[in-house]
Amino acid sequence: MKQDEKIPYKVYLTEDELPKAWYNVRADMKNKPAPLLNPGTGKPLQAEELYPIFCKELVAQELDNDNPFIEIPQEIRDCYKMFRPSPLVRAYFLEEALGTPAKIYYKFEGNNTSGSHKLNSAMAQAYYAKKQGLKGVTTETGAGQWGTALSMACAFFGLDCKVYMVKVSYEQKPFRREVMRTYGASVTPSPSTETEVGKRILAEHPGTTGSLGCAISEAVEAATTREGYRYVLGSVLNQVLLHQSIIGLEAKTAFDKIGVKPDIIIGCAGGGSNLGGLISPFMGEKLRGEADYRIIAVEPASCPSFTRGKFAYDFCDTGKVCPLAKMYTLGSGFIPAPNHAGGLRYHGMSTILSQLYHDGYMEATSVCQTDVFKAAEQFARVEGILPAPESSHAIKAAIDEALRCKETGEEKTILFGLTGTGYFDMFAYEKFHNGEMSDYIPTDEELAASLASLPVVE
Amino acid sequence: MKQDEKIPYKVYLTEDELPKAWYNVRADMKNKPAPLLNPGTGKPLQAEELYPIFCKELVAQELDNDNPFIEIPQEIRDCYKMFRPSPLVRAYFLEEALGTPAKIYYKFEGNNTSGSHKLNSAMAQAYYAKKQGLKGVTTETGAGQWGTALSMACAFFGLDCKVYMVKVSYEQKPFRREVMRTYGASVTPSPSTETEVGKRILAEHPGTTGSLGCAISEAVEAATTREGYRYVLGSVLNQVLLHQSIIGLEAKTAFDKIGVKPDIIIGCAGGGSNLGGLISPFMGEKLRGEADYRIIAVEPASCPSFTRGKFAYDFCDTGKVCPLAKMYTLGSGFIPAPNHAGGLRYHGMSTILSQLYHDGYMEATSVCQTDVFKAAEQFARVEGILPAPESSHAIKAAIDEALRCKETGEEKTILFGLTGTGYFDMFAYEKFHNGEMSDYIPTDEELAASLASLPVVE
Repeated sequence: MKQDEKIPYKVYLTEDELPKAWYNVRADMKNKPAPLLNPGTGKPLQAEELYPIFCKELVAQELDNDNPFIEIPQEIRDCYKMFRPSPLVRAYFLEEALGTPAKIYYKFEGNNTSGSHKLNSAMAQAYYAKKQGLKGVTTETGAGQWGTALSMACAFFGLDCKVYMVKVSYEQKPFRREVMRTYGASVTPSPSTETEVGKRILAEHPGTTGSLGCAISEAVEAATTREGYRYVLGSVLNQVLLHQSIIGLEAKTAFDKIGVKPDIIIGCAGGGSNLGGLISPFMGEKLRGEADYRIIAVEPASCPSFTRGKFAYDFCDTGKVCPLAKMYTLGSGFIPAPNHAGGLRYHGMSTILSQLYHDGYMEATSVCQTDVFKAAEQFARVEGILPAPESSHAIKAAIDEALRCKETGEEKTILFGLTGTGYFDMFAYEKFHNGEMSDYIPTDEELAASLASLPVVE
Repeated sequence: MKQDEKIPYKVYLTEDELPKAWYNVRADMKNKPAPLLNPGTGKPLQAEELYPIFCKELVAQELDNDNPFIEIPQEIRDCYKMFRPSPLVRAYFLEEALGTPAKIYYKFEGNNTSGSHKLNSAMAQAYYAKKQGLKGVTTETGAGQWGTALSMACAFFGLDCKVYMVKVSYEQKPFRREVMRTYGASVTPSPSTETEVGKRILAEHPGTTGSLGCAISEAVEAATTREGYRYVLGSVLNQVLLHQSIIGLEAKTAFDKIGVKPDIIIGCAGGGSNLGGLISPFMGEKLRGEADYRIIAVEPASCPSFTRGKFAYDFCDTGKVCPLAKMYTLGSGFIPAPNHAGGLRYHGMSTILSQLYHDGYMEATSVCQTDVFKAAEQFARVEGILPAPESSHAIKAAIDEALRCKETGEEKTILFGLTGTGYFDMFAYEKFHNGEMSDYIPTDEELAASLASLPVVE
């Protein structure tokens, strides 16, 4: 291995160096993300209207467009110590395999039982729920990372946890369910007959394999019809991006420690939790004109909200019980083709990232599933870590950028978010090995049909 | 969390602090481990006799009872950087949950795709095989950790990898196979009809669920009947304990950094790879009379080689094709009851550890399966990490010791080896959750019958 003497393979921060506050990128945005609207009145939602759904402190964070830093309570910093800091890794072996002059780094968030960065927000949300004296929380999960993370957080803080899991994932990932059970959570495949909205969706789409949008509807109904419960969400929301800023803050501190500045920052994008967290302090510098970075969102070609969606107000869920958010969306009825293996299956996108993309602060690209798994396998073999399908979207884009550097001879520094591990995704890897994976991409007609259901907002 | 100001939650060594040599505990043993014997002649095996089975440099390491330190080649130190250092963790949350005055630490080896410490030796063995110009290696795997580790190492160094996997594990862990396949290995359930010894075992024991001893026989036959192949083993051997000393060396350096000295050191024991590695530098101090530690081996009550086996020469494999080793053994025909879930299913034990145990330098205890899973679940909920069933044997013993401290009020410092994660053991966790796990323990008659087959050695 050809190693730069000054750059270790991994940088771990010490406990003293860990961030004590989350960074709220909204404070530095000139064009703030559009407010959530009440689906009934079409008016911006007030805090009071959100209290039946979310914990009070989380509502405050959701609506806070002004404070650049929000202190991380000591209790959350304590549990962050269980799985943080996450390492910033220099991908020396990948660089060597590619023969690129580029310098590739990744921030690896998979070294915890949930297998991903999701735990960063789960711990925070469970803490606030407990602090408010709640009995439990409900949520949805797609690939299962968020559900696992929330189960862990609820076990830690002593809360009941009810997870609606997208049916196709529930069936493909039986062991995810057992992990959640180990942490005391109950898991229901969605759509289910447990909720009114689930029954309605099943009646309208018999045989559906489910979607995040459906599962959200069910989880919200379950939370709002139970005493002492609230709903929590693992992506999309402003509060989630706030909590996930810990990823970018740690990465930036680690880079500063070794005197490196990335040129390109790449993250996979489903609802935006990882990407928003990873880029936040860098985006802050860019917004304040202090530095420039190329920032690239990578999404699946089978669920291309940035690259083929519309920037408009839409429902956050399939059952249309949630507030309206202005975001890049494929329409709340959009469900990725059943062959789509990993997460990143949400029809919309974080309003923060949507606004930043709309304003030209970041780029977006989409990649095909089999290319993603090829990149995943290449990465696994040289860097050791078997990546989650989601994270592998970022790997694919990082490899492409590094190969471009090889052509041009540029020594660019690339940072990508390795959000998690694929240990519970071996069903998808098996399909890939057996050549049974397809790259179905929605047609223009399909997208137009699903976008036709966008609500009219004045 | 009540945290000792001077003791961080995790200690990570810097790259400069990583060990540059393995420690060979045999150099400090007055009574050396008994030599391997040629099963035909009953005479100690010479290096030349081992060359058809093992790589040359590994044979040298296997037979070296004198050099206390053996340099880790730079190439291996480079790949160690992929997944090392592993953290030394202070189990603050577990201490709090137990209400114990004991201070509990664990050395966590699970943060890599193989999910365990096995990668430490796999990387070393693959490196030496490649250096010798071999085409590939064969091996056996039980729970699948070793097979995964070796697959990763072979992918890294560009070697072919053929794995015989104990049939019961192959069936319980379909996704383990896919991980190995991702790394390009081929995996065969054992006993198989691919080898003569496999056919013989199948004829004698139709319907057997396999054992490590069977799989070893098959892997050895496959290696010695192919041009350019050698056999590699993930435990039991002296060379493996040597490589695994990296665990203990790192732990000791980390303890020295924070000015702590453990009183009790606990490790799970199957063939002895983790335990031997974890304790080695501490055992060295004990052997040299520089310090004293209570050292405890924890084994499954269903496979109790230390606590109910015999210290005698025995075959290392079921097919009786391997050398004889003097060790605590249950007889080479011993197969744990099918309900036994995790690894730690080998009939024998490292000759080094056997000698040390025989000479009174360490204790041994056995624990029942359901107690192990109870401890695992308790640990997972408070410390976040979902442990491997193997590692959970050590957790169970550590909790017991900590509770003893609670009774006596003693503030002992306990170190245990958390060898790996249980992400591929959810089938076993599911059985546990469903109350379908039993605690079958072999009867005295069963053990006597299996020990009756011990070879006669003069």
